[in-house]
Amino acid sequence: MSQNATSASNPFSARPADKATLEEGNLFAPKFDDQGLIAAITTDTATGEVLMFAYMNAQALALTIETSQAHYWSRSRNELWHKGATSGQVQHVQEIRTDCDQDVVLLKVTVEGNGASCHVGYNSCFYRNVSLGQKAETATLTAPIADRVYDPADVYGKKD
Amino acid sequence: MSQNATSASNPFSARPADKATLEEGNLFAPKFDDQGLIAAITTDTATGEVLMFAYMNAQALALTIETSQAHYWSRSRNELWHKGATSGQVQHVQEIRTDCDQDVVLLKVTVEGNGASCHVGYNSCFYRNVSLGQKAETATLTAPIADRVYDPADVYGKKD
Repeated sequence: MSQNATSASNPFSARPADKATLEEGNLFAPKFDDQGLIAAITTDTATGEVLMFAYMNAQALALTIETSQAHYWSRSRNELWHKGATSGQVQHVQEIRTDCDQDVVLLKVTVEGNGASCHVGYNSCFYRNVSLGQKAETATLTAPIADRVYDPADVYGKKD
Repeated sequence: MSQNATSASNPFSARPADKATLEEGNLFAPKFDDQGLIAAITTDTATGEVLMFAYMNAQALALTIETSQAHYWSRSRNELWHKGATSGQVQHVQEIRTDCDQDVVLLKVTVEGNGASCHVGYNSCFYRNVSLGQKAETATLTAPIADRVYDPADVYGKKD
């Protein structure tokens, strides 16, 4: 079911022109980019660990607020993405924050199922470090800093 | 000194076509979008708190890796941004991580000066919660969940 990220109209409040209202007021007026998307950072409520980074369109953000389950916009599949619908890794949202200029949201979640959030098999998508002090041309990654918590083939099947 | 985010060539390794190499190898091959930018999430090493969200161009990312001080690309000023050059809030990078498909970086930092990272005066840019269970049309933000740690006028002057 391919759709366009902007096909659903944006139900959120219009952005105030006044910077103080945007930064210090209580109006939630998220900024979507020219593709109709807003950045979303997802962290684990208990540990604070950053689990994943993705994007939401207006519909996904509205559903996340209304249902307290994380919804994203899949840019690779070009469709609304109810996280966990296939994997069982449903994310129950405890808090949503936004930043000073309201162009990103931060979710604090607890994860259902096997508790993981990364399709490669790790709890967090951020399972490798970039070694510091390197030149860009030769920058390398460390081996995974965490153990896999599940085998993706068991959850998603052998398809890729 | 206005520049273009892509004016500096990209010194990083070319992206491997092979998904397994990208997701499980040790080659750092960050993906920049069509504006030459990659998303960057910055967290506090000690507390794990998400401090800010910004973008880097290839030059900013290379400088961050080489110097262990956070550099970003300011989209509003359209220039390379050495965080803390004006405010003293230099971010010393302890770790850089990337995610499974290498299109975002996660920094763990300690902050110099007054220790804050947000230009509005808070430690973190994420100082307001979106109240859950609302309809998008009427979604509101809570009052700040943290106290200001400094007065921006003292750091940036009265200019806006």
